[in-house]
Amino acid sequence: MKVLAISGSLRAASINSALLRTAARLAPPEIEVTFCSVIGVLPLFNPDLEIDVPRGVAQWRAEVAAADALLIASPEYAHGVTGTIKNALDWLVSFEAFVDKPVAVLNASPRAHHADAALRETLRTMSAVIIEDASVSISLLGTNIAEAGMAELPSVTHAIRESLAALYSVVVLKQDGHSHTFPVRPG
Amino acid sequence: MKVLAISGSLRAASINSALLRTAARLAPPEIEVTFCSVIGVLPLFNPDLEIDVPRGVAQWRAEVAAADALLIASPEYAHGVTGTIKNALDWLVSFEAFVDKPVAVLNASPRAHHADAALRETLRTMSAVIIEDASVSISLLGTNIAEAGMAELPSVTHAIRESLAALYSVVVLKQDGHSHTFPVRPG
Repeated sequence: MKVLAISGSLRAASINSALLRTAARLAPPEIEVTFCSVIGVLPLFNPDLEIDVPRGVAQWRAEVAAADALLIASPEYAHGVTGTIKNALDWLVSFEAFVDKPVAVLNASPRAHHADAALRETLRTMSAVIIEDASVSISLLGTNIAEAGMAELPSVTHAIRESLAALYSVVVLKQDGHSHTFPVRPG
Repeated sequence: MKVLAISGSLRAASINSALLRTAARLAPPEIEVTFCSVIGVLPLFNPDLEIDVPRGVAQWRAEVAAADALLIASPEYAHGVTGTIKNALDWLVSFEAFVDKPVAVLNASPRAHHADAALRETLRTMSAVIIEDASVSISLLGTNIAEAGMAELPSVTHAIRESLAALYSVVVLKQDGHSHTFPVRPG
């Protein structure tokens, strides 16, 4: 299963980005988590450019299309979604491969409910399928934890494994019509 | 009074941009409405760049600082604010000159309540002062009206004049501590 990890923050020390990189490190061999690096270089959305999209947008759409599922972690800025994550989504509104895409929304600051709710509303409106069991809250605020420490924190590793497992079972179920436990080992 | 008009859409034929340009045309001599052109070339917000902001951001902040009031018109994309308007606001979150700035929010599609509510929530969180009497709804959806026709449509001209008048009375009141009727003629 290919998972595209998308951070809504461009800050180098972003907790959300660190969480997603940690998810990539913790993922079992069955799951390939790729960190999306193009989101920060997307131009601002302009419907007039949709006829012949800029190169960065074409790459963004190709990465989304190639992914079996999306894993989004995005901070809240001023009680709203970040301009960065919304801009990236705006480029997908008329993009057919986004429809029915399984999406997990990680929330690294559970007290920040405005952005989480707005992001979900937009994703639903765009006909993504939010996988609730994979959309976990991970309270890191105030822990002052560095990225290196995340993979050692049981609450983090448990939440991330739970999220990936839920995504996996939905995506694999969707592909072959059967439910699987996680992880699936050849045998 | 200097008003900075900010459109959340970069589409050339944007109804919101057309409304703002119409406001600039309808404004009486006491009010100078300037159309913000830098919003579309802002980089995506990155807190790491706040120490030495990119040139476009410096210009954006200077335009906001120089304005007595802001006039925002922004569409709703997928039940959310546009990435473009939120990105522009993200660059103002830690910008002192934005605090207490009088802001009017025009809504050109009154049925689209998600983006309007989210935009207001963010503006309030950023300590802007939303001028309710100046924040009018103007229903243009379905009228298929071109920009040239807007200045002739009584419902549009009335709403825009009402909005500018409300902004004017608040800003002038704020500056000299007295209430004025609108427009103020030298006499």
